[in-house]
Amino acid sequence: LGSAWDSGAGWLCVLMVGMAAGATAGVIDIGARWMSDLKNGICADRFWLDKEHCCWSDDKTLYKDDSCSAWTTWPEVFNIYEKSNLYYFLDFFFYVSWAMSMAGLAVVLVKVFAPYACGSGIPEIKCILSGFVIRGYLGKWTFIIKSVGLMLSTASGLSLGKEGPMVHLACCIGNIFSYLFPKYGMNEAKKREILSASAAAGVSVAFGAPIGGVMFSLEEASYYFPLKTMWRSFFCALVAGIILRIVNPFGSDQTSLFHIDYMMKWTFIELIPFALLGVWGGILGSIFIWANIKWRSYCKNSAFLGRHNINEVLVVTAVTAVISYFNPYMRKNTSALIKQLFDRCGPDDVTSDLCDYRNRTITTSKVDDNYHTGIFGDGVETAIWQLIFALICKLIFTVFTFGLKVPCGLFIPSLAMGAISGRLLGITMEALTTSLQASGGQSEWMSCQIGKDCVYPGLYAMVGAAAVLGGVTRMTVSLVVIMFELTGSLEFIVPTMVAVMFAKWVGDATHKQGVYEAHIQLNGYPFLNNKEEYPYSTVASQVMRPRRDEPELCVLTQDGMTLGEIEALLRDTDFNGYPVVVSRSSMYLTGFCTRRDLQLALHSARKTQPYIVTASVVFFTPTVPDATSVGGPAPLRLRKLVDLAPMTITDQMPMETIIDMFRKLGLRHVLVTRSGKVLGIITKKDILEFMRHQESGFPGSVANPNFN
Amino acid sequence: LGSAWDSGAGWLCVLMVGMAAGATAGVIDIGARWMSDLKNGICADRFWLDKEHCCWSDDKTLYKDDSCSAWTTWPEVFNIYEKSNLYYFLDFFFYVSWAMSMAGLAVVLVKVFAPYACGSGIPEIKCILSGFVIRGYLGKWTFIIKSVGLMLSTASGLSLGKEGPMVHLACCIGNIFSYLFPKYGMNEAKKREILSASAAAGVSVAFGAPIGGVMFSLEEASYYFPLKTMWRSFFCALVAGIILRIVNPFGSDQTSLFHIDYMMKWTFIELIPFALLGVWGGILGSIFIWANIKWRSYCKNSAFLGRHNINEVLVVTAVTAVISYFNPYMRKNTSALIKQLFDRCGPDDVTSDLCDYRNRTITTSKVDDNYHTGIFGDGVETAIWQLIFALICKLIFTVFTFGLKVPCGLFIPSLAMGAISGRLLGITMEALTTSLQASGGQSEWMSCQIGKDCVYPGLYAMVGAAAVLGGVTRMTVSLVVIMFELTGSLEFIVPTMVAVMFAKWVGDATHKQGVYEAHIQLNGYPFLNNKEEYPYSTVASQVMRPRRDEPELCVLTQDGMTLGEIEALLRDTDFNGYPVVVSRSSMYLTGFCTRRDLQLALHSARKTQPYIVTASVVFFTPTVPDATSVGGPAPLRLRKLVDLAPMTITDQMPMETIIDMFRKLGLRHVLVTRSGKVLGIITKKDILEFMRHQESGFPGSVANPNFN
Repeated sequence: LGSAWDSGAGWLCVLMVGMAAGATAGVIDIGARWMSDLKNGICADRFWLDKEHCCWSDDKTLYKDDSCSAWTTWPEVFNIYEKSNLYYFLDFFFYVSWAMSMAGLAVVLVKVFAPYACGSGIPEIKCILSGFVIRGYLGKWTFIIKSVGLMLSTASGLSLGKEGPMVHLACCIGNIFSYLFPKYGMNEAKKREILSASAAAGVSVAFGAPIGGVMFSLEEASYYFPLKTMWRSFFCALVAGIILRIVNPFGSDQTSLFHIDYMMKWTFIELIPFALLGVWGGILGSIFIWANIKWRSYCKNSAFLGRHNINEVLVVTAVTAVISYFNPYMRKNTSALIKQLFDRCGPDDVTSDLCDYRNRTITTSKVDDNYHTGIFGDGVETAIWQLIFALICKLIFTVFTFGLKVPCGLFIPSLAMGAISGRLLGITMEALTTSLQASGGQSEWMSCQIGKDCVYPGLYAMVGAAAVLGGVTRMTVSLVVIMFELTGSLEFIVPTMVAVMFAKWVGDATHKQGVYEAHIQLNGYPFLNNKEEYPYSTVASQVMRPRRDEPELCVLTQDGMTLGEIEALLRDTDFNGYPVVVSRSSMYLTGFCTRRDLQLALHSARKTQPYIVTASVVFFTPTVPDATSVGGPAPLRLRKLVDLAPMTITDQMPMETIIDMFRKLGLRHVLVTRSGKVLGIITKKDILEFMRHQESGFPGSVANPNFN
Repeated sequence: LGSAWDSGAGWLCVLMVGMAAGATAGVIDIGARWMSDLKNGICADRFWLDKEHCCWSDDKTLYKDDSCSAWTTWPEVFNIYEKSNLYYFLDFFFYVSWAMSMAGLAVVLVKVFAPYACGSGIPEIKCILSGFVIRGYLGKWTFIIKSVGLMLSTASGLSLGKEGPMVHLACCIGNIFSYLFPKYGMNEAKKREILSASAAAGVSVAFGAPIGGVMFSLEEASYYFPLKTMWRSFFCALVAGIILRIVNPFGSDQTSLFHIDYMMKWTFIELIPFALLGVWGGILGSIFIWANIKWRSYCKNSAFLGRHNINEVLVVTAVTAVISYFNPYMRKNTSALIKQLFDRCGPDDVTSDLCDYRNRTITTSKVDDNYHTGIFGDGVETAIWQLIFALICKLIFTVFTFGLKVPCGLFIPSLAMGAISGRLLGITMEALTTSLQASGGQSEWMSCQIGKDCVYPGLYAMVGAAAVLGGVTRMTVSLVVIMFELTGSLEFIVPTMVAVMFAKWVGDATHKQGVYEAHIQLNGYPFLNNKEEYPYSTVASQVMRPRRDEPELCVLTQDGMTLGEIEALLRDTDFNGYPVVVSRSSMYLTGFCTRRDLQLALHSARKTQPYIVTASVVFFTPTVPDATSVGGPAPLRLRKLVDLAPMTITDQMPMETIIDMFRKLGLRHVLVTRSGKVLGIITKKDILEFMRHQESGFPGSVANPNFN
């Protein structure tokens, strides 16, 4: 029974995590949507309904993107129904005020209650999953404040998404539940397995993409991902997805966020524009990362901005709201914008600028391939200019938004930038094809017939979205899977793959790090990137401490040191641990003892054992000579503190192998030996420093000190 | 330029591998299809066309699964057109003879030219990717013979698939091309990166599932899968998929093998039958593995069957062909059968038994949900019995087929068994729902209306296929992704996930190993399973060699041993390497020297340096005392043979950590030390033996020899 409980505990834990993550995501979706609509108006008789549900409850089934009588805009609340200047001013005023109050409330909540609740959380999750401990980062306060703050910041209309923070929230849930199971709560390594599964559940509920969630956890979030974890992550992501589907926050049965219900076809020649979109995605991503990091490191070093976090948020929100109010594509919910750009023009879209084609044949009975001819009306031109403006603004806003002290992710803004770029290219391609066909009859390059849709601008929008997100985050396989699940379109794999591949190549060539790695470096977290190779010719003796010009290695001898000497050593040095050797002259290694254990043991010995004095000899050996035979004060036995199996390497081991060991085994330090003698120690910090030196080509401090 | 070439070489290599894999798959598909149709007849005027293309060239566009005048059956070749007994006998005779000659040719080719070309190859690929070297397993002869043999064995109608062997073929291509790039060809670890990518390409072309291929390579095939490899595998799989699409062997533009072009809906209550299918899949998978392994290990130990490989193949083929001839579902191509079972009944299927519903309303203009009412005609009953018979036969045939000395995979047979089971359950559910509706009006459990399709038997077939394949191979995420890409249906993720999960649980509970692991164990390959945990309390000193009752560790001293002594050591022992120590009395470790290097060096020294004699002292130290000062014969310097960075552990390290190191770092041996002295050695073989002992609960030989 014990073993069944033992093996079942992990499954039970991820089941609970999945259910809680699904429910949380549902609540946040509903809340954010309601608050987002609050900027425009309120449901007259049932204030707790958002616009869509308000109009549904009004029994107007033909409602589509338009107003209904039950929904009251703010000017109407004040009995101003005439569309006068006052009406527009009030509408504008309430829009901006609501946005600023929501963003302000979010930042105040974060500052006062849970400073860790800001940002996307993914860089930190990456570090935590690689073994770094940030106390309280996954605690319940962070969870509560981030949930509420996320609703507020999303609703405020800032250029941010809720997908990254959702991953953080899911990890908080995983951390909190893991304490119910001592096997997981008490063991950091085991807990990380639960956190990996939680990250998968987070993406699963954020996008409605369970497989994509597992892939994300594997490729982006997790450091070491054993296959057993994959299988459990899969379960967790699935449960979360099912629960979200039951909660059904959007009131539709669609599991995918931007479901596409038409067949898209593409010809091989179109792979060229898709690759171009990939290149563009890589460049845009690099520009974004570069600008964002520049701005964030400026903020970090600026005392003035450091003091005015709240004002910074308010200013960014005000500018965003004021500008967005006047652009229809920026004003609407970003998810809705992306969905619109992915979609194709159907009979319902006659009023939309984007679908203002001439010679269109409206057949309401069924959607036909023969819907429009690609000759643009004036509306499309307006739409193009508005979209270009929206693209530029989105880029600038997102640069300043990502890193604000509110919960903010950048999946959705990146997707939006990409979708706009893609749609623009798609419209251009459509015009090009139409004019080619008009001039030369049927083009032999495009295997489509005159009067049929040759080019699907919606497909370009999708490919563009994937490309820009790829350029920003440098995700590959997981991104393709997520996009695939987001849109539910299989034909679409090859174009996305091509675009993502080019985005990755171009992105890596122009700005080496993805946005998460860049933020990890900016914040100085100890993170060993596991995606790169280090073909260094350096060996261990060149990197280890102590260096040639430094004092020799601090060690404990297994017998012969007095309590006083050890206390002095602890006082004088601040190393996290000390090798235990046979004797100072031979330096043969017997084990390793951490500073923390040593301090606790000495402290308790001093307190509880009155016969232990400063001159007492400390023994780390299994057998201790009889106190009477030695004479002098009673000895102290500390054998049980010693880790008898420290990880050792020889001084001639290549750094490449050592870095590999650190990454794969999750080490924090190794002891360097030669012929059994301990020479030095290499910690994770030493390795990170070494790698930075190697990258900057500065070989200064890594001269060969010990070997000739 | 050098570094650009260096980094580009990997990409160029996988590009070539992808292209070659795509082309190979195309050729095999075309060849296998032609040969498969040859069993039934031949194209009269263009013998090189298969049935489908033959009838296309005949300008009969309305051809569907039926004969056309250009296609000549074998009796017709002999001018027998009347459907007499003679006609049927001749047809039967040619069917069986062709099958037997193809299978016979395949096994002869394999036996004579490339014994490694038999079987699926996936167990061996798993071992190779875990670091085991099988010389010639991925050579060009294996590739050529396996390609030809695969076409023949697939066409012979045996119960086997070409998907597993396709992975082997892709890996052969990867191995062959890697020799063009010294960076990969000369380094086994680097070569494995290419092989991982090749395996992904293999699955990509086998199923038309590039993402599934990457996931398969990650989850099932590869041992250690760094993220850089993932990204390259992705590219390789994509290229292979695109090339296959250009070759277009099936003459359709579908990228997925069993594309489903209708929307499937399912209700939550249906998750219960889906879970049942999962349970069934797990049980069926375990039965299959158990029976197959029993039979194969009987064959292995039977001298008679060992001598009659060819006859075994001929007998199995004959029995399969004779029985299959009379069952319409077994006679048709297995892929076509699966596609039929996945599909739903449309207006074209009026003649099919499986779609013989009463009260059907045939609306040829468009396929409607309202197509049939679920009340069966006689045809469905016939179909049910034939399908049950086919299921039992498939199971028995596949048990005897998998492991024959012909190229044979088991993906397709497993999918077929699952699809049959699923379709049967689907038909049952359909009848149940119909009768529930008839008795109690609209059932509140099923949210569908009377007269509409409530239950899609095709969906059950898909879920069943995934469940049985999951039960046989114990794949999880990769299987869901592959099924998803195979069918192109997004709604279908949750049902498959549920079924696969139950199949995995039930399968693991009834038969611990998947079919590949079972075959690895049957063949005794050294493979450390990386999906399990080993919570052992044993430490290194209890497992290492030499044991307490064995002679002490054979070591080389770094100076002082003569050439004769070392030669005697090499002659008397057969270890693969020897630790080099400072002196035999101190046993302090300086390095490690492999047997092979030592033998070569001593041999060449004896040949080329005449002054080296038996009494020459061998020095492994950096400095050698002057020959004149020592007196005696000239010394031999072998410093450069010594690996100065052997992996060492202490004798108190827990086995759990050691196994982890072996798996993650791909080690072959570690040296065990205490206080700098070398005590013994642990090899991969020792670890496998230890794990077997632990599993069988026999602690005999792992008594604690060195530590008390």
